[in-house]
Amino acid sequence: MGERTYRLILSYDGTRYRGWQRLPKGMTIQGRIEEALSEIFARPIEIDGSGRTDAGVHALGQVASFHAPYMPTEKLLAQLRHKLPDDIGIHSVEFAPERFHARLSATEKTYCYRIWNSVEPDVFGRHYRVQMPQELDFAAMEQAMSLCVGQRDFAAFCSNPKMKKSTVRTLKRFDLERKGQELCFNLTADGFLYNMVRILVGTVLEVGLGSRSAESIPHLFTKGVRADAGETAPAKGLCLMEVRYEHSDFR
Amino acid sequence: MGERTYRLILSYDGTRYRGWQRLPKGMTIQGRIEEALSEIFARPIEIDGSGRTDAGVHALGQVASFHAPYMPTEKLLAQLRHKLPDDIGIHSVEFAPERFHARLSATEKTYCYRIWNSVEPDVFGRHYRVQMPQELDFAAMEQAMSLCVGQRDFAAFCSNPKMKKSTVRTLKRFDLERKGQELCFNLTADGFLYNMVRILVGTVLEVGLGSRSAESIPHLFTKGVRADAGETAPAKGLCLMEVRYEHSDFR
Repeated sequence: MGERTYRLILSYDGTRYRGWQRLPKGMTIQGRIEEALSEIFARPIEIDGSGRTDAGVHALGQVASFHAPYMPTEKLLAQLRHKLPDDIGIHSVEFAPERFHARLSATEKTYCYRIWNSVEPDVFGRHYRVQMPQELDFAAMEQAMSLCVGQRDFAAFCSNPKMKKSTVRTLKRFDLERKGQELCFNLTADGFLYNMVRILVGTVLEVGLGSRSAESIPHLFTKGVRADAGETAPAKGLCLMEVRYEHSDFR
Repeated sequence: MGERTYRLILSYDGTRYRGWQRLPKGMTIQGRIEEALSEIFARPIEIDGSGRTDAGVHALGQVASFHAPYMPTEKLLAQLRHKLPDDIGIHSVEFAPERFHARLSATEKTYCYRIWNSVEPDVFGRHYRVQMPQELDFAAMEQAMSLCVGQRDFAAFCSNPKMKKSTVRTLKRFDLERKGQELCFNLTADGFLYNMVRILVGTVLEVGLGSRSAESIPHLFTKGVRADAGETAPAKGLCLMEVRYEHSDFR
């Protein structure tokens, strides 16, 4: 009955939270889950998420890992679901390889960023989509997105000015799906810098609005100056969709 | 610049509200809109909805009418949107014929009732769908629904025991759409009694669960006893989708 490594797959509506990361004060998703796990195991449990999401950002396929004594996963799942509020949903609890770490083991992440491209009120999507009623130049946005894909230095797309580690990432997918009045930007990379998705989307939206040209994009990668890129798009449009790992595949 | 009749089409997330109908205390949708209109016109304005929705019930195509002095509809729309919270969305403001009345003039209404038929947590639909993870007998439910369609006495499907007027209504449509794990019951009638949609859905779900047979349905129409029908399904799954009128057609 020794220590085990557990892996959770979960979704959350980030609206009420100050983000993923535990804080001394204020409600966070990590904090809320750690509280529940600590009660269940009757000792302090700390969890690692695949990454921190900011206040107001959502997740459909966040992954977290932690170490705790043995407990049947079915039982743990039921107890966790019972203790957590209805805006945090646990999809699965599994035993993972001992050295599994939700962040360090991750090889790929996918985010979706949603826009409500209409003047019509968006009552049921108001917490999950950003309303932008203006006409957008989709061809120009497609061009801008294609110029971002590949292995590049994304320093201009990082909100952390003190970032010391490499800012090179491989953006594998950056496209736009149109579902009626909803626009969904899909982004997949081997990793994302702080605010990278929201700055990429903000920059591409400026291209769509005509306030910036697609031709200005390559310059952002060569110069790497944050101030040259677009605004950080609002948090509520962002959702972490999926995290992938070496030998396995989680949704 | 005489008095005009206005018609609004609106949607709302009923989660925070005590229902449509104005109350002396407590927040209601009618109350909230009347407050905004009374400020805009600087005099008390009362509105009529196509029908009252209960606490927690939503709308995508509610219609309301009221009388007020002339104001350009574009201007009124902008002011209303500005004053109302983001869980009440005004889709349109139009001038209507003088005698138009959102409830009395209505000829047909359509509701949707949503179920989340899965054990998976439903974080993003939690306010709009009722979770029911059990396996359901779809063939039996289809049979039960078909036995409810037509011009019938729906007395057994009415929560108001003091209903004095006719309880005969014509149910034109009662079917079930399956969209992945979401089930959507669609109901259209010339009018609905108090709680009629929720009792119809509750009864059909009992058939789906096997706790009642489809063959028991005709009996409900002949005897007309409320206690013989199923439970009233929870409010949050219900959404008023569309209201139709004689010479016009909204949404």
